[in-house]
Amino acid sequence: MSEQAPDMRWWGWGADGAGTGLPAHAREFLEQRIGAGARPREHVPLEQVRVEPSRLPERARAALAAIVGEGGVREDHPERVLHAAGKGYPDLVRLRAGTPDGAPDAVLHPRGHEQVAAVLERCAQESVAIVPFGGGTSVVGGVAPLRGRHAAVVSLDMRGLGELIALDDTSATATVGAGMRAPALERALAPHGLTLGHFPQSYEYVSLGGCAATRSAGQASTGYGAIEKMVLGLRLAAPAGEIALPALPATAAGPGMRGLLVGSEGALGVITELALRVRPAAAARSYEGMFFRDFETGCEALRALARAHALPDVARLSDRAETEVSLALAGDGGVKGRVGRAYIGARGYADGCIAILGFEGDRHEVPARRRRAMRLLRRAGGLGLGSSPGEAWQHGRFAAPYLRDDLLDAGVMVETLETATRWSNVGHLHRAVRDAIAGALDAQGTPGIVMCHVSHVYETGASLYFTFIARQIEGAEIEQWRIVKRAACDAIEDNGGTITHHHAVGVDHVPWMEREIGASSLQAIAAAKERLDPAGIMNPGKLLPTG
Amino acid sequence: MSEQAPDMRWWGWGADGAGTGLPAHAREFLEQRIGAGARPREHVPLEQVRVEPSRLPERARAALAAIVGEGGVREDHPERVLHAAGKGYPDLVRLRAGTPDGAPDAVLHPRGHEQVAAVLERCAQESVAIVPFGGGTSVVGGVAPLRGRHAAVVSLDMRGLGELIALDDTSATATVGAGMRAPALERALAPHGLTLGHFPQSYEYVSLGGCAATRSAGQASTGYGAIEKMVLGLRLAAPAGEIALPALPATAAGPGMRGLLVGSEGALGVITELALRVRPAAAARSYEGMFFRDFETGCEALRALARAHALPDVARLSDRAETEVSLALAGDGGVKGRVGRAYIGARGYADGCIAILGFEGDRHEVPARRRRAMRLLRRAGGLGLGSSPGEAWQHGRFAAPYLRDDLLDAGVMVETLETATRWSNVGHLHRAVRDAIAGALDAQGTPGIVMCHVSHVYETGASLYFTFIARQIEGAEIEQWRIVKRAACDAIEDNGGTITHHHAVGVDHVPWMEREIGASSLQAIAAAKERLDPAGIMNPGKLLPTG
Repeated sequence: MSEQAPDMRWWGWGADGAGTGLPAHAREFLEQRIGAGARPREHVPLEQVRVEPSRLPERARAALAAIVGEGGVREDHPERVLHAAGKGYPDLVRLRAGTPDGAPDAVLHPRGHEQVAAVLERCAQESVAIVPFGGGTSVVGGVAPLRGRHAAVVSLDMRGLGELIALDDTSATATVGAGMRAPALERALAPHGLTLGHFPQSYEYVSLGGCAATRSAGQASTGYGAIEKMVLGLRLAAPAGEIALPALPATAAGPGMRGLLVGSEGALGVITELALRVRPAAAARSYEGMFFRDFETGCEALRALARAHALPDVARLSDRAETEVSLALAGDGGVKGRVGRAYIGARGYADGCIAILGFEGDRHEVPARRRRAMRLLRRAGGLGLGSSPGEAWQHGRFAAPYLRDDLLDAGVMVETLETATRWSNVGHLHRAVRDAIAGALDAQGTPGIVMCHVSHVYETGASLYFTFIARQIEGAEIEQWRIVKRAACDAIEDNGGTITHHHAVGVDHVPWMEREIGASSLQAIAAAKERLDPAGIMNPGKLLPTG
Repeated sequence: MSEQAPDMRWWGWGADGAGTGLPAHAREFLEQRIGAGARPREHVPLEQVRVEPSRLPERARAALAAIVGEGGVREDHPERVLHAAGKGYPDLVRLRAGTPDGAPDAVLHPRGHEQVAAVLERCAQESVAIVPFGGGTSVVGGVAPLRGRHAAVVSLDMRGLGELIALDDTSATATVGAGMRAPALERALAPHGLTLGHFPQSYEYVSLGGCAATRSAGQASTGYGAIEKMVLGLRLAAPAGEIALPALPATAAGPGMRGLLVGSEGALGVITELALRVRPAAAARSYEGMFFRDFETGCEALRALARAHALPDVARLSDRAETEVSLALAGDGGVKGRVGRAYIGARGYADGCIAILGFEGDRHEVPARRRRAMRLLRRAGGLGLGSSPGEAWQHGRFAAPYLRDDLLDAGVMVETLETATRWSNVGHLHRAVRDAIAGALDAQGTPGIVMCHVSHVYETGASLYFTFIARQIEGAEIEQWRIVKRAACDAIEDNGGTITHHHAVGVDHVPWMEREIGASSLQAIAAAKERLDPAGIMNPGKLLPTG
């Protein structure tokens, strides 16, 4: 049943040899707009990546090997480098330079809940910190190998818990090992005509336990819901004991324990099993593009759609900057050529905003839902672009992290961050965060391009997903990034956004958590943590200021 | 803005003079079937209700009066009786006999969050337990005036926090004081063409803070979602500090704090404000009845509907016993007469099960949704009964608690309890709980009628709502009830159900909480409680075994 989950290349995204490099017109565009791309910057060879000798005490190593087997305790250089960081911009900058910010002293490969539970118990005794590691795709430092106050730190690679445990088709419920990768589950569900419907940009590599631990939201979450809506039950191994919550459609038996553990980021324990809601696989799909005169008009149209309960499953709306860059980077073979800027311009939509709308489901329902939604959107000022942009988006929906590697090769800083807010504040927050990022880039002498799209739509508000690019300041890449990140996060908290809609807290967002949920909330979570993890070995430095 | 929230009669449901008494045919039916109804049992007069002298120390009384004003500290007999209990069966049995299980030493009437916060701080210093009291409609002992280890206990009546604080129409978000009653909010929203859509059976009296604190689900929650889906933000006053979570459509900033406080039942603090998702008020409504050959066929039809995303907003399916009793009690003027049992019988549906399906929403969408759903249901074996049963159900949707008073007058024990489980277990759980209740009644020499309906439908499962009636054992009513309740709860936990789908934990379900969520979950919640409420004054005896 289990299939080996793939490793990613240690210095970037995807398998070795993935990515196609920047085409000439993209390189020109970058040169012209942000003065980057002239000087290629390669990553160092793997053997030059500096990793300190393992500090895992021999007694702890032996005890852990007794649990997971000798082959389950890996201390070799390549394995430690692979688990030295997630896939955030600072992670990749450091890895490519051969100077990761630490590495786990060992990587453990447990098989099954009982081994995980035994590892936790032993690590608590030996003062060894544990970093749960699923797909390793965190972009906020969620898998950073921090020791906290402990003697050593181990990465707990979850791929040995990668199986479909049970499928209750009648109840539309799949029970999986937390290390199972999202594509592996889809492959297991396909013969049954079912799907989970969780497709984050990291889909190809992400683990389901990681998705739950970080409150992940997929690109189609407007239709399928974020992972929080899918988790019906779960099993958590904590140093002080186990929590097993059976799969239930709903319950009022006290505070929402499922919701408390979804988003616990490995700080309360390790999610080892998940019972997930699945759905009939889409028999029909319709993805298409639409143009709006400006971002405000597009937002208002999506809001009207949400209010009318006429939302598609994927709903995205790019602002002008993102629309312009998408069209420019796509080249003549992409959206630009196929749609024709001239056509759009002629109808008064020059400098407009592109939206992607995707409908999935039943063969009879998709056309009806689509008709109603498109009618409402046209009434709200949308200009239909047909299916080409939709197909182009579907084709490239997981491509951005590969493109990031190409941009890093070209000396370009590229980072994303995201938030959400109520509809009445979307326009204001969009401007505030955009201006904060642009201002922080300008102030450093590296003016950039700040782009944004609405990525998930709700009845009461929407998420905003920002991407920015600028020329790297060589030798000060991390500090350059930190200044921009801080400005963006401050702008988010000062202007009514959440510090994260779906990237989670990790290390990067910890400083804003008190402003986000307040000191008393943090105290309550810390108290729960102390009870479940008295030695404080679980993922130190993540989630909580005191972690 | 604020309007005076109504009191209920102290011994039952609704205003004085409410209820119409049992019609003759209903009395006959009860006599025949459970041997009850012969001997009327009146409640004692209010002045005969026994309440011990207040134990609130004078120093505490003065300090509290300094916060809420002299008029805000009530120690008079009627006020203490009104707050002596909720509206569960044992509550009403005791109240009617004039022997409530204790009473609050005083009833406080704070106005606004700051007064609540000041009361909590002072009560922690004075060792005075606090029972938050919204509509007082708990049927599981949620407002029982338990002192725990404290010198005294006060009931905190929330009606002074009963205002609509803000309405953000653009964001479909209403911010309310937690003491606001559900009908008051609907009245405030109606001029804006909006609705909350939360209609529990207790709708006429329930407070919104109470709904949130108990994870309430309304009758239309299949469409509108339970209260948990509506709470976008909230403010909680806890003895150790305040938690303020702003209204957000979604967030991944750590564990689900909103979901942790929704369902906290006053044990972590007092919810003082709520930001709630609202929706356009239904412009069209279509409610109708359908008959199924048996409960299994009906369940399977609802499951197919859920899987096809074709659910109505209200979806209920009565089992045979409940269908039979509904038809019998309705009399010739009700469903029975209008639908015609002969017609149903002739088509082979004798002894079948009735379903109520309600569609609400947009004038154009309701007919389309209805057509699709009814087609799927007919294909699954449903026989359409037209709109009469739907109208009858709508007319009587809040009537059951009034009927309960009439049944108590007639010496009938009547109680409800509810659970939820995955679809593949619905039939098994239905039989197990029904048989457990029937067995416990038989064993006491009071054979009864056990009825059930599916009350809320999900993609992955459904809730089951049980009602049972039997002849009261005079003088041992509470013990009789306890034996049945225990049997039912054991059956639920032994057979894969949740101990409560929407009635909450209160006092009654505490003994089953460890089996439901496990010792480690309870420890984690208890740790959070100890941090927020170090003196343990918040609603002792509820929610947690150690509360």
